[in-house]
Amino acid sequence: MGRWEPNARGRLEQAALELYVERGFELTTVAEIAERAGLTERTFFRYFADKREVLFAGAGTLRELMVGALAGAPESAAPIEAVAAALEAAGAVLGERREHARQRQAVIAANPALQERELIKLASLATALAEALRQRGVTEPAASLTAEAGIAVFKIAFERWVGGTSQPDLPQLMRESLGELRAVTAAG
Amino acid sequence: MGRWEPNARGRLEQAALELYVERGFELTTVAEIAERAGLTERTFFRYFADKREVLFAGAGTLRELMVGALAGAPESAAPIEAVAAALEAAGAVLGERREHARQRQAVIAANPALQERELIKLASLATALAEALRQRGVTEPAASLTAEAGIAVFKIAFERWVGGTSQPDLPQLMRESLGELRAVTAAG
Repeated sequence: MGRWEPNARGRLEQAALELYVERGFELTTVAEIAERAGLTERTFFRYFADKREVLFAGAGTLRELMVGALAGAPESAAPIEAVAAALEAAGAVLGERREHARQRQAVIAANPALQERELIKLASLATALAEALRQRGVTEPAASLTAEAGIAVFKIAFERWVGGTSQPDLPQLMRESLGELRAVTAAG
Repeated sequence: MGRWEPNARGRLEQAALELYVERGFELTTVAEIAERAGLTERTFFRYFADKREVLFAGAGTLRELMVGALAGAPESAAPIEAVAAALEAAGAVLGERREHARQRQAVIAANPALQERELIKLASLATALAEALRQRGVTEPAASLTAEAGIAVFKIAFERWVGGTSQPDLPQLMRESLGELRAVTAAG
């Protein structure tokens, strides 16, 4: 083991994002990321399996956060309200770093393989939310439909927030988007 | 150009699915598919770019079908009703071949790269439906939210149908699942 480096993970993440934006994901090497962060490649691999994982390392934490919020919603909450709690929890955490999110989104938008990975992340979030709803006693297909609807809201609200120029609050955009989903499905 | 072979596309598709189920997608070669179909590799490549495309060749047609049905919905139809028309049109066509769909689904479920491709197909369907809704004058984020909700229904209804043992009608399952989505989003 090398010596302890303060905030090595954060420095590597920041260096990687900068390089992916500057020269593209494909052309960036782990050696360059480590160098930019003032760390060694060996340190890089202590935190990330490869350069792609820098962009997706938070997925597991996000899933646990959302599942935890859903499971912690009041017993009396309807399934869609439990999902709303998960969305707001995600919004509160992700919403703290818009510039980071914006850079990450730009890198992903430029690379089809990363877009696929992002879609898998969202599909896996939907699966986890559906499972958490079933744990609350919600039956199928309501559990899967509610979870998929929640992920649709997550995706759209996140895109609006990342692409926006004003400073709206991500949890608020999540709430608004869910309200809009409810309005469009109720119409007609 | 070789001589014309009756239903070459269908024979290749059937042979490929059989082989993917029997020995796995990865281990199947184009030469084996052509042989099983009683055709040449050259004929295979006249219809499909590679062995993966056998599983996804219908994606473009499905998208056009759904976009067409959405665009053709009465002007007075609410966005979610126009999406319902797209879902029913898809259900009517896909619903004719459950055994085929079941085999295809089993092959995809066994291969992560194919699952990714399937997710991309669904994401691209959502994008196309959102664009078709905007063409009808639906504004954002309602267009994207309605389209994503529709694809969530498509996905769940299709899974229920493929996994089911009775003989429900896919368009009917699409309608029922949409009704359930409306019920879960309205609750609470």
